[in-house]
Amino acid sequence: MDEFALIRRYFAGLTAASSGVVVGIGDDAALLTPTPDQQLAVTCDTLIEGRHFPVGTSAYDIGWKALAVNLSDLAAMGAQPRWFTLALSLPQADPGWLAEFSAGLRALADRHSVALVGGDTTRGSLSITITALGESPAGMALRRSGAQVGDCVCVTGTLGDAAAALALLDQGTRDAELLMRLNRPEPRVGAGLALRTLAHAAIDLSDGLSGDLPHILEASGVGAEIDVDALPASVALRRRYPLRDARMRYQLAGGDDYELCLCIPPDRLDHARARLDVPLHVVGRITAVRGLRYVDASGATIVFNHPGFRHFE
Amino acid sequence: MDEFALIRRYFAGLTAASSGVVVGIGDDAALLTPTPDQQLAVTCDTLIEGRHFPVGTSAYDIGWKALAVNLSDLAAMGAQPRWFTLALSLPQADPGWLAEFSAGLRALADRHSVALVGGDTTRGSLSITITALGESPAGMALRRSGAQVGDCVCVTGTLGDAAAALALLDQGTRDAELLMRLNRPEPRVGAGLALRTLAHAAIDLSDGLSGDLPHILEASGVGAEIDVDALPASVALRRRYPLRDARMRYQLAGGDDYELCLCIPPDRLDHARARLDVPLHVVGRITAVRGLRYVDASGATIVFNHPGFRHFE
Repeated sequence: MDEFALIRRYFAGLTAASSGVVVGIGDDAALLTPTPDQQLAVTCDTLIEGRHFPVGTSAYDIGWKALAVNLSDLAAMGAQPRWFTLALSLPQADPGWLAEFSAGLRALADRHSVALVGGDTTRGSLSITITALGESPAGMALRRSGAQVGDCVCVTGTLGDAAAALALLDQGTRDAELLMRLNRPEPRVGAGLALRTLAHAAIDLSDGLSGDLPHILEASGVGAEIDVDALPASVALRRRYPLRDARMRYQLAGGDDYELCLCIPPDRLDHARARLDVPLHVVGRITAVRGLRYVDASGATIVFNHPGFRHFE
Repeated sequence: MDEFALIRRYFAGLTAASSGVVVGIGDDAALLTPTPDQQLAVTCDTLIEGRHFPVGTSAYDIGWKALAVNLSDLAAMGAQPRWFTLALSLPQADPGWLAEFSAGLRALADRHSVALVGGDTTRGSLSITITALGESPAGMALRRSGAQVGDCVCVTGTLGDAAAALALLDQGTRDAELLMRLNRPEPRVGAGLALRTLAHAAIDLSDGLSGDLPHILEASGVGAEIDVDALPASVALRRRYPLRDARMRYQLAGGDDYELCLCIPPDRLDHARARLDVPLHVVGRITAVRGLRYVDASGATIVFNHPGFRHFE
């Protein structure tokens, strides 16, 4: 089967999920109609086997996650996802794998009405690069740079499940609940859209709070104090790790949460929560003192030195 | 050096080359301002070492070519290139390689005023995926589907140099002139823009005329007759291969030309040529009889059966 037939067979159905597609796959380029008076948000993320997902991850989950991590970036900008391109490198053209992969991709694409509008398929080690395009009204996008002293540092959902799943997997234990969070992250698109007029700043948590929050602090010229006792943990995580100190590593530095971290003025919290269908937890405060510090519920300083995951270190 | 520092150091300068960039690299996503009343053209191409460029190709040329093949797709739509994302997979973070690669990328990006607006860097075998965004006035883009019976089949520039360079390289011969065409293709952006109101259909020649023209024929529901004696050849190619039959393989099926193939009504040819700063050659005619046939200058049928390059065959 040649490249063109491959793309047509497995991915053709992914093209029609969004409005604004004048020409989808099948010409030299796709043609899209941007919404008037909106800005275009563009992000690009690569997933590599053994680095961004464990060897042995199902093709369905890989398809889901490759799109999810990109939609999560759009969510952090408060942008409405619209379209994406897919560059897929595969060791071989396995029809079963491609069917599963495209099904996972499609499940998430359909949920957010994003259309596949271009791509390339090459033979090589397994790697998936997606560029996602979203839209937000001009001047309304969420940025990293707007955090203000006194803002609450908030996170959606819970933290640490994905990293704990991965650590357990390395020890030979498969925890189905935790693995679901590693393999099928839910990009918080609705939360990003709902909070773009209420939050001062936002970032998505791909490298863990300790790795990602500093980007907001640096861009905004502020610091933060995080209460490690306030970090939200799932029932599944608490069951595995009843002690806070055992959970903390996964919650602060684990990565792969794909929750949003948002800086919101305290007097807007109730309004923010009322707009969300996902829990919003206050985990700390923005401070004038630079740097990121950790305290516990009693106010005592906690030493935590574990950077977020980075490539090429 | 971590991923973020890498990107900043070598690619930061590539972000400012275009208007319409509200936020470049350094937030969760870039923010762009599309031009009112324009459609967005989107294309995505991956280059892999040893497959899309020879092992040993200079980093400068790889950077150039990775962007060139994408701009060539936008050119074939008659779109004005604006922005691009870059996903770079590298075996190691070699500062010298990165400096050269980004210089090649930048040289072409600056020429066409396109800005780098996002990307990802991962460790792995050498692979470059670019998604390029362009704009064209609504309803004005060049398509594959508009060819009409009687149209001249035209190509810009000359054909076959890149494929001949590669074949010679395989035999241990480096032909500097031919290699320049393989390593530094010139995307015909100006030609695509100039001809979007004159041509009925267009495609860029990445897989060779015999591989790419059928896409136009299929999309338009027509056939074509190509005069193999009319295929334009460079001086360098004629010097290496004085006989037509020796050149023909490279010119029809070689690939990597990145010239445009356009279907233009005969009475618009003079007008078309007057708008171009690149030669435009008529190589055949669109016919009502389906399929692609080859003849020589005397009208005798030529048998040529060598499909364009495809992956996963």
